[in-house]
Amino acid sequence: MSKIKNISGFPEWLPEEKLLEDRIIAQIKRVYESFGFCPIETPAVELKSTLSSKGVIDKEIYLLRRALKDPQETDTEELALHFDLTVPFARYTAQHLNNLVFPFKRYQLQKVWRGERPQKGRFREFYQFDIDIVARDTLPLAADAEIINAIHLVFATIDIGAYRIRINNRKVLLGLYQSLSLSPEQQRETIRIVDKLDKIGEDGIRKELSALLPNHSDAIDTIISYTKVRVAPTEVAQALNQFNCSDPLFIEGRTELETLFSLLPQDSVQFDLSLARGLDYYTGTIFEVSLPAYPEFGTVSSGGRYDDLAGQFTNQKLPGVGGSVGLSRLMGLILDKGLIAKGRPSPTDILITVFDEGQRVELQAIASTLRTRNYAVEIYPAAPKLGKQIEYADKKGIPYVFFKTVDTGEVRVKTLATKTEASFATLGEFFEAFPSK
Amino acid sequence: MSKIKNISGFPEWLPEEKLLEDRIIAQIKRVYESFGFCPIETPAVELKSTLSSKGVIDKEIYLLRRALKDPQETDTEELALHFDLTVPFARYTAQHLNNLVFPFKRYQLQKVWRGERPQKGRFREFYQFDIDIVARDTLPLAADAEIINAIHLVFATIDIGAYRIRINNRKVLLGLYQSLSLSPEQQRETIRIVDKLDKIGEDGIRKELSALLPNHSDAIDTIISYTKVRVAPTEVAQALNQFNCSDPLFIEGRTELETLFSLLPQDSVQFDLSLARGLDYYTGTIFEVSLPAYPEFGTVSSGGRYDDLAGQFTNQKLPGVGGSVGLSRLMGLILDKGLIAKGRPSPTDILITVFDEGQRVELQAIASTLRTRNYAVEIYPAAPKLGKQIEYADKKGIPYVFFKTVDTGEVRVKTLATKTEASFATLGEFFEAFPSK
Repeated sequence: MSKIKNISGFPEWLPEEKLLEDRIIAQIKRVYESFGFCPIETPAVELKSTLSSKGVIDKEIYLLRRALKDPQETDTEELALHFDLTVPFARYTAQHLNNLVFPFKRYQLQKVWRGERPQKGRFREFYQFDIDIVARDTLPLAADAEIINAIHLVFATIDIGAYRIRINNRKVLLGLYQSLSLSPEQQRETIRIVDKLDKIGEDGIRKELSALLPNHSDAIDTIISYTKVRVAPTEVAQALNQFNCSDPLFIEGRTELETLFSLLPQDSVQFDLSLARGLDYYTGTIFEVSLPAYPEFGTVSSGGRYDDLAGQFTNQKLPGVGGSVGLSRLMGLILDKGLIAKGRPSPTDILITVFDEGQRVELQAIASTLRTRNYAVEIYPAAPKLGKQIEYADKKGIPYVFFKTVDTGEVRVKTLATKTEASFATLGEFFEAFPSK
Repeated sequence: MSKIKNISGFPEWLPEEKLLEDRIIAQIKRVYESFGFCPIETPAVELKSTLSSKGVIDKEIYLLRRALKDPQETDTEELALHFDLTVPFARYTAQHLNNLVFPFKRYQLQKVWRGERPQKGRFREFYQFDIDIVARDTLPLAADAEIINAIHLVFATIDIGAYRIRINNRKVLLGLYQSLSLSPEQQRETIRIVDKLDKIGEDGIRKELSALLPNHSDAIDTIISYTKVRVAPTEVAQALNQFNCSDPLFIEGRTELETLFSLLPQDSVQFDLSLARGLDYYTGTIFEVSLPAYPEFGTVSSGGRYDDLAGQFTNQKLPGVGGSVGLSRLMGLILDKGLIAKGRPSPTDILITVFDEGQRVELQAIASTLRTRNYAVEIYPAAPKLGKQIEYADKKGIPYVFFKTVDTGEVRVKTLATKTEASFATLGEFFEAFPSK
């Protein structure tokens, strides 16, 4: 007999937890579809060369290898598991370009795999739940607002308490850094350093900036002062004007931010100039969602605007904007902190008990009728003492238990939560009381 | 720029196809839940030793390897992608034994991976959609009926034409073979050979049986005559009685089959003594579902009864019965033959057009209201000529297009299918006409 060993980083839920996850997935799906996003799915497996096409860190990739390779096999391309949904989406869009309608709005819920060293709190397999809008040639800023509005509604809908959507714009950052006479390379590095603020703190980024920009202590002070600008939507224009920055990229970004905030609700959003996002990829709007009650937990969703989705695969210019909800991480938090009450470990509404095996055919017909009325119904698979059957319903949290006596044909329904019982002289009367779920 | 290459065996659908797959998934989920099955999900990745614990053919397994291994990493256990959902389910059940309520009824929809040599028509990544009922120590035969009834309702619900559920019982087969004085090893081999009937035909199995059972030509004739027994539910008892077989295992199987058929509907099911199923695993009821209109397509669902789900992981005896729907194969057939009409490539019900960017905030509020009424709503992301916006709705198959003129505030709704237009003097009137989807 082999001992079962846990492999860390591959989360797995109990039935009542999976039912909760499914409920949250259905809520997010409904929100995304209510904005007109369409589902797509790509294989978990891509060519290694596809995944590496944007210069990703190879060590996070899991390669596949057949345990026993067929000697006649000539297919020698390396296969690998995708580590995010963006690269597969880029490949999909480029591949099916002529079969898609643009602006193309897709959502995608899939697991991704990252070959990290096993360590506590780090998932190696987890769900991401992405949305993106991609256009040919140009994509208006209204799309940025739509992505953030959809993510906003996701967090309002799943209802796990206050959330904060921090928003910035890369053009504003780069314009400000340009005004400090930083070179393009220094600007990119500065973004990478500022992105670490939450992790290494102000002293940490000052140290790294000093290494990057020796003899620029004024510029460093200024860059750090920018990270303190965090204002409500109504104060965005004023906050941006105070910089008196005439850099054209800054001005472009300022206009974008003002327009964007005019299209967002006032609650739960803020302009946060400390937000940088690590990826080179982003060119305009960037955002991150966090839960103020759990600062240690970090980001639960993020995204932004990019100029070029699939330049590695097609000549067609495909600008886009997107966001991703870290579903597995979020589930971990929800379960850990009990943010949503777990339900019962079964979808069943009614347990039909069995006094005698001779009843089973009739009870099956009753169950079928109830199923057409949208009730989930189980018939106990044997006919032991009633106490045992009720105990089963109780353990599974099944709300109603149905009894039909063999002799009188009387029907009784017990509501387990209240320990009350209703009695029906005929089946017809019972069906009237359970018209539809 | 890297050229996009297809990797064969990893199917991927266009948006309108994925929307169809999602609809079918939702239908199957609803059927499974209506019988009280609860969802679970296991990681795609298991220890190689877990997957090999029942002596599976290693060459079908994909092993994982990190592209760049961390030199400090000490975790040397081999990881692999699961090739079915049964082994992971066995591991899950044994691991969480004390946190599950038995009989445990679960469904599981996940992708599985098989490291086959690339060849046309063979998927290397595909969805399976499993249900199982597992008990501690004993599980009544009513559970077998429930699995088949649920699968029956799945195919009735997805509505792709006639389906045939062929049913047999391993005890009946083994009892008959025992009566022919076959050794237990010969009985198992005979089952494997008979299972190939559809592939190699009667002559093929006669040849293989002759090699297995030299000098037993009478027995071989008898075994082949068994494969011709295919009868309707009402004739099951008679068909079984005619064998006059007194083997105790046969008699047990006969009683099980008679009871089972008494608990199944009359339509679409048949007793088929040619059905053998390849796996050693099964001990009683076995079944397969096929579509008579597409005999070349083979099996779309199958399953059966087993005595011991997780003997490799636990001392607890866990008998069960289950079935699996081959969702990706089925989708391939549905798309190939057009068995279900593909819908439009978008979930959107209403496109809100934009005359002027100044309207956008107001239009967003209208969209929000419609979303609370369960309509999926898009606002066009820019304000080009109306013709372009209507063309977009047309290409995406969006049924309604909404217009609100800037000057008069008049609202018009165009129904694209009928090319008719309704006019509303106020927004209020419009909302009355669209109360809820």
